[in-house]
Amino acid sequence: MPVTHIGWAPEHGVRFLDQTLLPTEERYREVYSVEEVAEAIRVLRVRGAPLIGVAAAMGATLAARSLSAGFPPAAALETVLTACDVLEATRPTAVNLAWALARMRTAARRTGGEGLHAALLAEANAIWEEDQAMCERIGAAGLPLVPDGALVLTHCNAGALATGGIGTALAPVYHAHALGRHVRVIADETRPLLQGSRLTAWELTNAGIPTTVIADNMAASRLRLGDVTCVIVGADRIARNGDVANKIGTYSVALAAREHGVPFYVAAPRSTYDPMTPDGPAIPIEERASDEVRRVGPAAQRAAIWNPAFDVTPAALIRGYITDAGLLSRDQLGRLAD
Amino acid sequence: MPVTHIGWAPEHGVRFLDQTLLPTEERYREVYSVEEVAEAIRVLRVRGAPLIGVAAAMGATLAARSLSAGFPPAAALETVLTACDVLEATRPTAVNLAWALARMRTAARRTGGEGLHAALLAEANAIWEEDQAMCERIGAAGLPLVPDGALVLTHCNAGALATGGIGTALAPVYHAHALGRHVRVIADETRPLLQGSRLTAWELTNAGIPTTVIADNMAASRLRLGDVTCVIVGADRIARNGDVANKIGTYSVALAAREHGVPFYVAAPRSTYDPMTPDGPAIPIEERASDEVRRVGPAAQRAAIWNPAFDVTPAALIRGYITDAGLLSRDQLGRLAD
Repeated sequence: MPVTHIGWAPEHGVRFLDQTLLPTEERYREVYSVEEVAEAIRVLRVRGAPLIGVAAAMGATLAARSLSAGFPPAAALETVLTACDVLEATRPTAVNLAWALARMRTAARRTGGEGLHAALLAEANAIWEEDQAMCERIGAAGLPLVPDGALVLTHCNAGALATGGIGTALAPVYHAHALGRHVRVIADETRPLLQGSRLTAWELTNAGIPTTVIADNMAASRLRLGDVTCVIVGADRIARNGDVANKIGTYSVALAAREHGVPFYVAAPRSTYDPMTPDGPAIPIEERASDEVRRVGPAAQRAAIWNPAFDVTPAALIRGYITDAGLLSRDQLGRLAD
Repeated sequence: MPVTHIGWAPEHGVRFLDQTLLPTEERYREVYSVEEVAEAIRVLRVRGAPLIGVAAAMGATLAARSLSAGFPPAAALETVLTACDVLEATRPTAVNLAWALARMRTAARRTGGEGLHAALLAEANAIWEEDQAMCERIGAAGLPLVPDGALVLTHCNAGALATGGIGTALAPVYHAHALGRHVRVIADETRPLLQGSRLTAWELTNAGIPTTVIADNMAASRLRLGDVTCVIVGADRIARNGDVANKIGTYSVALAAREHGVPFYVAAPRSTYDPMTPDGPAIPIEERASDEVRRVGPAAQRAAIWNPAFDVTPAALIRGYITDAGLLSRDQLGRLAD
């Protein structure tokens, strides 16, 4: 089974695995302030659309944790609502964050400010438990797509580390593995933050599932080989028309999967669906710091690596050849042999 | 003008810039043995299909460098032919290597073993000079594709550092820049060895050409923006039917370019064309060590970075949605809002 990486710390704090340190170090943090949770989400110590929702809900409870009994109810409510705003401002793309915080605000308002902490704890626990159940249902729904002997290609990390449960994209893989099916996974390393090589490869190999890491640009060549059963990825937001926002690079994989007739699936909870957003172009896309591309990290030690140095581009995709004999079409290439 | 990074060391040695250390360090090596040149090609201190040909030709001369005047001609010839075999075994994909060494063997045999060193030096210099002239002609041929204001996307490094001259894919860019045209380049970082962020960004920014580095998986999203004039890449081998072997990831860029109507060009010298290879599947593809994917390096300091954290996958590319409400088609997504 995958690792338990989020939960409560003693005295109603929040405890989580710092994912920025994986796979080199497995360090848990216990935090007691809203700002610490916001920071953790902002710098991706806690990441993955569903997990961000769970973590933000837990974080919102911290605003009410140390209010004394005599604190004015209206001011207490205001404190919690402000905390929700702070948490919501951390990441713009994943809709789960806003969804979870909307639930926390509603739960807070329902109390009128009395018994606020207990009500928030209950709601955060409900969101967390629903997240776990959601993962199990996704695993069951996707199970038929992962038969014995399946080879699944995935991008980024939409596994246990991205949720409060067993993941979204990887949930069918975990279910199939639990049933004794032989399943293997190809994990795109997922530049720039290497969630594939750092997180997906780490959690899958920990669970005993053979995993091969490839550089993102190798996926098209890998799909061409013809042995990939299906592609399964997560989603940060699904627009009304079915367009999906997901980790940078997902689109490239989808283009290559179509080219090679490999079915491409998106795994996501209903909280990811956003009918208020008509289509993909209407989804805000987060741009992150330059340093993320300049800096890099190691791959999980137990994952295998597939590392071809070149690929083949079919002539049909090439408009022309700029050569020392001029700009040539494909039909003119014979001139080079003269 | 781009840097001069290959040439002769004193006493007929070979001098080259160690490209594995770029952009952090600009260190030149002077070597005097065939094995040192072979090692440099094998571990990519010297890389790029045309440059490998030039370097191997220069390396072959080293076999004859220290033969005494009384050395038996037949044995001298045999020494050189063996050196050519050693050099040819370093890399399997680029056809230029075999092409250059075939010329060196012919030049060696023509001497019958007498005056071998001088003949080899002359042939290596001829190959080098032809390479420089080839780059200039490629630059001229591609110049119309790079108008004032052009934005060129490239993958890997097919620039000055990949040749004995001003490059292949980047030659039209250098020519346009020399004419005073405002040209900008987007360089895929090119995992796993980061030739784009380490080499292309380094040589272009050194020459004053504005360059933005992206992770490879961002190219499809970048092409979608609609402001890329064209894609120009190099080639390691062009098969008879026009299929092209080039750095891993080229194929993904070509798929995305087609999807977005951006013309995709391959720039290569005639020595890259291999009519003996019927098509892409017949080209041997080198697989390199796992460590290359595990290990990474920094980007050139002066290059800009474009770093979106997500992209959008159109619904048309998605076969189904695995959700907690079941496996859904696009038309069934509305169920999630119920």
